[in-house]
Amino acid sequence: MIFPEKRHLQLPGPTAVPPRVLRAMERPMISHRSPEFAQLVADITADLQWVFCTTHPVYIINGSGTAGLEAAAANTISSGERVLVVVGGSFGRRFAAIYQAFGANVETIEVPPGKAVDPQQVVEALTRHPDTRVVAVTHHETSTGVLHPIEEIAKVVHRHSDALYVVDAISSLGAVPLQTDAWGIDVVVTGSQKALMTPPGLSMIAMNERAQKRMEGSTAPRFYFDLRTYDRSLRNNEQPYTPSISLFFALNEALHMLHEQGLEAIYQRHVQLRDAFRATVRAVGLGLLAEDAIASPTVTAVTPGNRDLDIQQVRKQLANLGVESMDGQDELKGKILRLGHMGYTDALDLLTVAAALEMALIHLGVKGIAGVGVAAAEEVLLHV
Amino acid sequence: MIFPEKRHLQLPGPTAVPPRVLRAMERPMISHRSPEFAQLVADITADLQWVFCTTHPVYIINGSGTAGLEAAAANTISSGERVLVVVGGSFGRRFAAIYQAFGANVETIEVPPGKAVDPQQVVEALTRHPDTRVVAVTHHETSTGVLHPIEEIAKVVHRHSDALYVVDAISSLGAVPLQTDAWGIDVVVTGSQKALMTPPGLSMIAMNERAQKRMEGSTAPRFYFDLRTYDRSLRNNEQPYTPSISLFFALNEALHMLHEQGLEAIYQRHVQLRDAFRATVRAVGLGLLAEDAIASPTVTAVTPGNRDLDIQQVRKQLANLGVESMDGQDELKGKILRLGHMGYTDALDLLTVAAALEMALIHLGVKGIAGVGVAAAEEVLLHV
Repeated sequence: MIFPEKRHLQLPGPTAVPPRVLRAMERPMISHRSPEFAQLVADITADLQWVFCTTHPVYIINGSGTAGLEAAAANTISSGERVLVVVGGSFGRRFAAIYQAFGANVETIEVPPGKAVDPQQVVEALTRHPDTRVVAVTHHETSTGVLHPIEEIAKVVHRHSDALYVVDAISSLGAVPLQTDAWGIDVVVTGSQKALMTPPGLSMIAMNERAQKRMEGSTAPRFYFDLRTYDRSLRNNEQPYTPSISLFFALNEALHMLHEQGLEAIYQRHVQLRDAFRATVRAVGLGLLAEDAIASPTVTAVTPGNRDLDIQQVRKQLANLGVESMDGQDELKGKILRLGHMGYTDALDLLTVAAALEMALIHLGVKGIAGVGVAAAEEVLLHV
Repeated sequence: MIFPEKRHLQLPGPTAVPPRVLRAMERPMISHRSPEFAQLVADITADLQWVFCTTHPVYIINGSGTAGLEAAAANTISSGERVLVVVGGSFGRRFAAIYQAFGANVETIEVPPGKAVDPQQVVEALTRHPDTRVVAVTHHETSTGVLHPIEEIAKVVHRHSDALYVVDAISSLGAVPLQTDAWGIDVVVTGSQKALMTPPGLSMIAMNERAQKRMEGSTAPRFYFDLRTYDRSLRNNEQPYTPSISLFFALNEALHMLHEQGLEAIYQRHVQLRDAFRATVRAVGLGLLAEDAIASPTVTAVTPGNRDLDIQQVRKQLANLGVESMDGQDELKGKILRLGHMGYTDALDLLTVAAALEMALIHLGVKGIAGVGVAAAEEVLLHV
């Protein structure tokens, strides 16, 4: 890279943060026990409720996305209770491990990498285990780029059980439609560093009355992640422990930007970017891990397809050109390239990525593709 | 306040953040899996080891100080094990509550507000309970401004038991001498938002071999706070979960500033500021909660002394003038004013505070003190 600060951060997360959001953190510290901070908490909470599509409280935890998942887990079970987790990749597996660490009796539905769970599998598992207390699903499995059918699963969970429905929406919320209240999702977790265009460090958890009632009775050991404490504080627009004040400034500014665009426009942009990038990948002769119908609008997992090349070499060439993507995780390590197109990404960014992908492949000896990937993306972007 | 951004943040925390540290956060996001971030982790770790006076690993957790305390607790006990906690105020009480939440059999040494624990009390408790596995002490009890005799307690803990010695140094480390290795402290916890002059959101935990060995065998339920995971990541200069990248940039810059001054000069400055402020408080006829010998160089708790006034009215007047201090907590709520003079505070800040305190009292009808508090502070500051 000639100019290192010109790096194009197309990761599955953290995503690029808009300059005005970064600048919001230049603001001097304020007291977290001041009326000013309480107003900030009130404003952010209202905006988050809008993004989560909920009227219920949204708790903000100073911690990474995994911290949010742990808070969701530790507040929804007691030791020995049965939890059903959909495992479609590394993050579903992590959610299961967290529930297990807190003493849950975890059943998993194992979904092959790149595939989505069939709601019928959830029905079968609930029928086998009528004592299931929680069904936990990853909305977008960041390790594979697959979107699980969250709305359909909501229906079967509530039809076939009294279980709480807990959704990891860390890399989907604010980019992909998710109607917390309307779909009947009891707990939704997200993080600051994905579609919310904020630096990493905050996790948010929405909880409806059913989940709050469960939380009151849950006996899993917890202190920092005890959301009852956050609930009491939130009634006064406070945070129980010294919050990451600079990140609150940043999140507030980022939420203003989301408001300026509107959720519908944001959802549409992400679909368009996904479709454009998938057209590029196909046009340059690479493969896609997930089928079109289940492909996430936020991250695309690229395979070598029929080309005889090492996809990690493509990733390295892209990085040399200034475009940062990510390797696969766990069983997909070395086998895929994951490119994020969520948050602060627009059509021109996508065309830049398409051009860089052509250049990367040409550097690796692929012929006859100059302009082809860009043309395919333009075709999608022009015909929306 | 005429200019709200001219506010003087003299809280027990968060403390004022130097402009160059705030500006460090304007840097665009980078990947937390990049060689660049690994270098940042390596640099920060080396600097933290210098501040902690340790050669052992220092784990960085994305979370507030309470998160650091929980990590220390959850990695040093198993359910049912006996823990001895010195409770000299709200933060000692919180440390005990955290150990309790994770199943420890907690014994406390209750110390009256404003007093320090006598190491002999620790000896007696250890003699009564030879099965004690952890002795947990707050170095500076932020709720009272008292410094507990950490070095002396280290000696008796190791002489009279095999217990791990765990110290909460959240509002002392980087301002008050604390020799982790030389004093034989097994676990030391601190936070970013106090003497380290960084925004809140990061907690750091140093652990020696004894503590690491205990951690390996500890069965307390934990996932996000499982320091074994952080230990494995740190071997590659990595963080296990998406870290708060902007706060790492800030911490790195703040640690550079500490280096520029040197630890000895920093310790001396804090003693000088404490002594100057205590001279001011006495000169204007207010009282001090802690005696000189145990008074913290980072925070001073002020009482009405013999003056017939509401100390919270003094705090409000100070706030109107632009100086922010804090109320007491729990049983001290309403009874004291806590003023922080740690981190980014110098002699002129202290004189400003002294003058503001005079003004505040004059507004409340106190007579004959104009210039008196400032003169007393100057006397101290000039004769060091």
